[in-house]
Amino acid sequence: MTGVTILKVGGAIVENPESLGQLLNKFASIAGQKVLIHGGGRSATKMAARLGIETRMVEGRRITDADMLDVVTMVYGGLVNKRLVAHLQARGINAMGLCGADMNILRAHKRIVTDIDYGFVGDVDEADGKALQGLIANGIVPVIAPLTHDGRGQLLNTNADTIAAETAKSLVPYFAVTLIYYFEKRGVLLNPDDDDSVIPVITRADFQRLVAEGIVSDGMIPKLQNAFSALDKGIARVFINETEIKP
Amino acid sequence: MTGVTILKVGGAIVENPESLGQLLNKFASIAGQKVLIHGGGRSATKMAARLGIETRMVEGRRITDADMLDVVTMVYGGLVNKRLVAHLQARGINAMGLCGADMNILRAHKRIVTDIDYGFVGDVDEADGKALQGLIANGIVPVIAPLTHDGRGQLLNTNADTIAAETAKSLVPYFAVTLIYYFEKRGVLLNPDDDDSVIPVITRADFQRLVAEGIVSDGMIPKLQNAFSALDKGIARVFINETEIKP
Repeated sequence: MTGVTILKVGGAIVENPESLGQLLNKFASIAGQKVLIHGGGRSATKMAARLGIETRMVEGRRITDADMLDVVTMVYGGLVNKRLVAHLQARGINAMGLCGADMNILRAHKRIVTDIDYGFVGDVDEADGKALQGLIANGIVPVIAPLTHDGRGQLLNTNADTIAAETAKSLVPYFAVTLIYYFEKRGVLLNPDDDDSVIPVITRADFQRLVAEGIVSDGMIPKLQNAFSALDKGIARVFINETEIKP
Repeated sequence: MTGVTILKVGGAIVENPESLGQLLNKFASIAGQKVLIHGGGRSATKMAARLGIETRMVEGRRITDADMLDVVTMVYGGLVNKRLVAHLQARGINAMGLCGADMNILRAHKRIVTDIDYGFVGDVDEADGKALQGLIANGIVPVIAPLTHDGRGQLLNTNADTIAAETAKSLVPYFAVTLIYYFEKRGVLLNPDDDDSVIPVITRADFQRLVAEGIVSDGMIPKLQNAFSALDKGIARVFINETEIKP
C-alpha cells in the first residue's frame, strides 16, 4: 500500500511570510503523495474587524453567524486557499484548492444548538476518501480549506483539526496514512521555553504521565487526544510536528 | 466526439437570489458534460467599498492593485465560487470550484504596462484543456472563478469572458464545444426595450448590418466579436443566451 502524508497547518503559520516560506519548504520536502489542510482563523478575525463584524469565540470555537460565514468563506476558501495553491504551483507541486463542498468531499450538518448556538458551524458526517484518492492518484495535491456543506446548499464553518482527522480517516482504505499537525512549535516540548526540548515520542502511557506532571497542559491536551484518536481509526503514523505519537 | 457545454455567467446574475435560482435551473437543465464560468465584479466592488478600497475601472476593466487583488481573490475564489458549488451540489451536480492556479489550469502573465497600469491583471498564455478533460471525464463539473496565476506564485485578476473563451478553446481537441454567454437579457434584441424581440441567429454578415443600423451597439459589439472569434478557434456552437452566433 502506498503512503500519503496529510499536513495540517494553522492559520498563524500561513499568515506570516517567513513562516509561510518555512511551511512551503517543509511541505515540498515531503516525499510522495500528500494533502495540505489549512486554517486561517487569525486572518478571518482581522478581516471581520475591518468589516465591522465582531468575532465571538467560545472555548476556542468561532460563533459563525451569516456575516461571519461570508468572512470565513472569503478568507479560508478564497484568500488563504488560493494563495497557498499559487505558491505551491510555483514550487512545481500540482496543488488544487478545495473546500468540503467541492466534489462533495466533506458533508456535514449544522451543529445542533444546546447551551451555545454556534451558528453556521458544521459537524462532519462523511468524508469522501474515494474522490480524494482519485485526485491523488492523478498526481494532484489537494489543499483543503476548513469549510464543509450540508448538501442542501449551505456552507458551514468547520474546525481545521477535525477536517484533517476526518480526511485522514477517509483515506485509510486507500493508503498508509501519515498525519502531521504542523504548528509554530517544533513539537511537544518538555520545557515550553526551550525549543530544543522536543519530546521525540509520546505513547498513551507517556501522555497520562506528562499531563499528571503538568508538562502537557492547556491546548496541547486536545491536540494529543486528537492524535491518539487518529491512531485508533487506523491512521498509520501521527506527528505533532516533530513529536511522534504512538499507541 | 462527445459534447461539452461551457456556460459563462456574469456577476449580476449570481448576486441576486432570484436570478441565481434561474441560472441554477438553466445550468441544471443542460444535458451532458458542462463547465460553469462566473464573474463577480459587482460583489467585488461592494466588498471593496466596505473595506474602504476605491474601485477604479478603465474601459470596463478593473485596476487591480495589491489590496484589490485580495478582494477579488476573496470574492471570486471564495464567496461567489464556493456558494455556487454548494448550490450546484444541492441539485445533484458534482461541482468543483477552481481558479486558474488550481491544477495550473490557466497560466497568465501580468499585463504589460503601456498607457495604463492595470496592476495585477493577467493575460492568459495557456489553458490546460487536458487537466480539465480529466475532471470532466470523471463526471466532475468545473466551476471556474476569473483568477489566473503566473506560475511564480502570483495570482492575477482576469476577465471572465476571456477565461470562458480560453477554456472553451482548450477543450476543442477533446470535445464538440458549445459556448454560451449567459446574461440578464434573453439574447441579442432587435428592440432593447422588448425582451421578446430576441434575434434567433446572427451571422457575420448580419452582425455588420446590425452594427451599421445601430441595432447592435456598445457592450454588445465586443460580446459578438468574442463570439465570432470563438467560432474561428474551432468552438462548434456559440450562443449569446438564446441568440445563436454562426459564421
